[in-house]
Amino acid sequence: MSTSKKAVCLLSGGIDSTTALVIAKNEGFEIYALTFRYGQRHIFEVDSARTIARQFAVKEHLVLDIDLGAIGGSALTSTIPVPKDRKADEITIGIPVTYVPARNTIFLSYALAWAEVLNAETIFIGVTAVDYSGYPDCRPEYIAAFEKMANLATKATTEERLTIHVNTPLINLSKAEIIKKGIELGIDYSITHSCYDPDKEGRACGRCDSCLLRNKGFEEAGVVDPTIYYKG
Amino acid sequence: MSTSKKAVCLLSGGIDSTTALVIAKNEGFEIYALTFRYGQRHIFEVDSARTIARQFAVKEHLVLDIDLGAIGGSALTSTIPVPKDRKADEITIGIPVTYVPARNTIFLSYALAWAEVLNAETIFIGVTAVDYSGYPDCRPEYIAAFEKMANLATKATTEERLTIHVNTPLINLSKAEIIKKGIELGIDYSITHSCYDPDKEGRACGRCDSCLLRNKGFEEAGVVDPTIYYKG
Repeated sequence: MSTSKKAVCLLSGGIDSTTALVIAKNEGFEIYALTFRYGQRHIFEVDSARTIARQFAVKEHLVLDIDLGAIGGSALTSTIPVPKDRKADEITIGIPVTYVPARNTIFLSYALAWAEVLNAETIFIGVTAVDYSGYPDCRPEYIAAFEKMANLATKATTEERLTIHVNTPLINLSKAEIIKKGIELGIDYSITHSCYDPDKEGRACGRCDSCLLRNKGFEEAGVVDPTIYYKG
Repeated sequence: MSTSKKAVCLLSGGIDSTTALVIAKNEGFEIYALTFRYGQRHIFEVDSARTIARQFAVKEHLVLDIDLGAIGGSALTSTIPVPKDRKADEITIGIPVTYVPARNTIFLSYALAWAEVLNAETIFIGVTAVDYSGYPDCRPEYIAAFEKMANLATKATTEERLTIHVNTPLINLSKAEIIKKGIELGIDYSITHSCYDPDKEGRACGRCDSCLLRNKGFEEAGVVDPTIYYKG
């Protein structure tokens, strides 16, 4: 069996990871989607991820429980308030309190483990260094360093059975470009979830950094924002 | 407050991680011990880690539940039989089925996250490239690549508040040298646990790779093996 066409795709349920997954699918990869319940304050992201995994007929969808909340340090996994109503330049300057320490490193490490078990050479992650909210673990130099480490880390790479590639198809795209690309590929973004602070029905607040970047993306792409908002 | 004297120490409850932790303590670090319940087939390692953390008065001991068993690929987290009664040259050639995919990468990623939250610059891991059972993620080139990636991964390193160092005080030591060093530092190794396949009382099998390397280490160090064995 060919090992070259399997890909582990990190899938949060938001716009970026969904688009990256559908790009991988469109390139002919057999998709193994990997989602984490990591102590987020809500679980609507995970519900979205399940819907997306079904809709795009992934081969397998693994949802792992990992307790990042015990480590702390983030508004997403603790009681630190999520910032609201920030201007675009406030969002893109500096690293916000919604940063989760070493999150992508932890997520990619699990993806690496699963890739080794599956004999998959490719990992997809929907990071973007353009509208990236200032997260250090979304930059190309970080991804390159992870990939180098990964190829020294595993039995499969040491025995030269596999070479791990971390694919970042969105890294040079703005949110608007990502949305345009996704719509070309048939994605209905109403099934994705981005809000850091939804209400009990899963409706978006429209005011957190993630909602603001998402809405700006739809506007700049010239696409009607399909998100359902509550008046927060 | 100085940040330089805090260290996150990965602590499994075995000889190596215990010795690395005590070396860190002896060097004056304030110890934050990090242990994982990762779907091992038994929990005696975690009990040993708790005893060690208490005995060496660590500042904090975090035990995280992470489900590596869902990813599979290892005799330690699945129903693949643990090999028994292998000769020394069989143990040290090739990578055994007790290898857990990307385990040290996952463990170090969590250590990195906690280090960032604590403002700790130092991570201790008790890997050894001598009696290393063939694990790729115990080699110096792997550790160097992880360290480089880590310094690109986090908010604290990006803002140049921290530089992460991964300390491997045992990397060039044999098991016998590690044991001699630990005894000099006052470690009672009877509280450590190494066996991959203990009985229900936590007594060691004496026949798995980990027991065989441990026993050989005590013999070569000229120290009575304090391990309690069952007749497996």
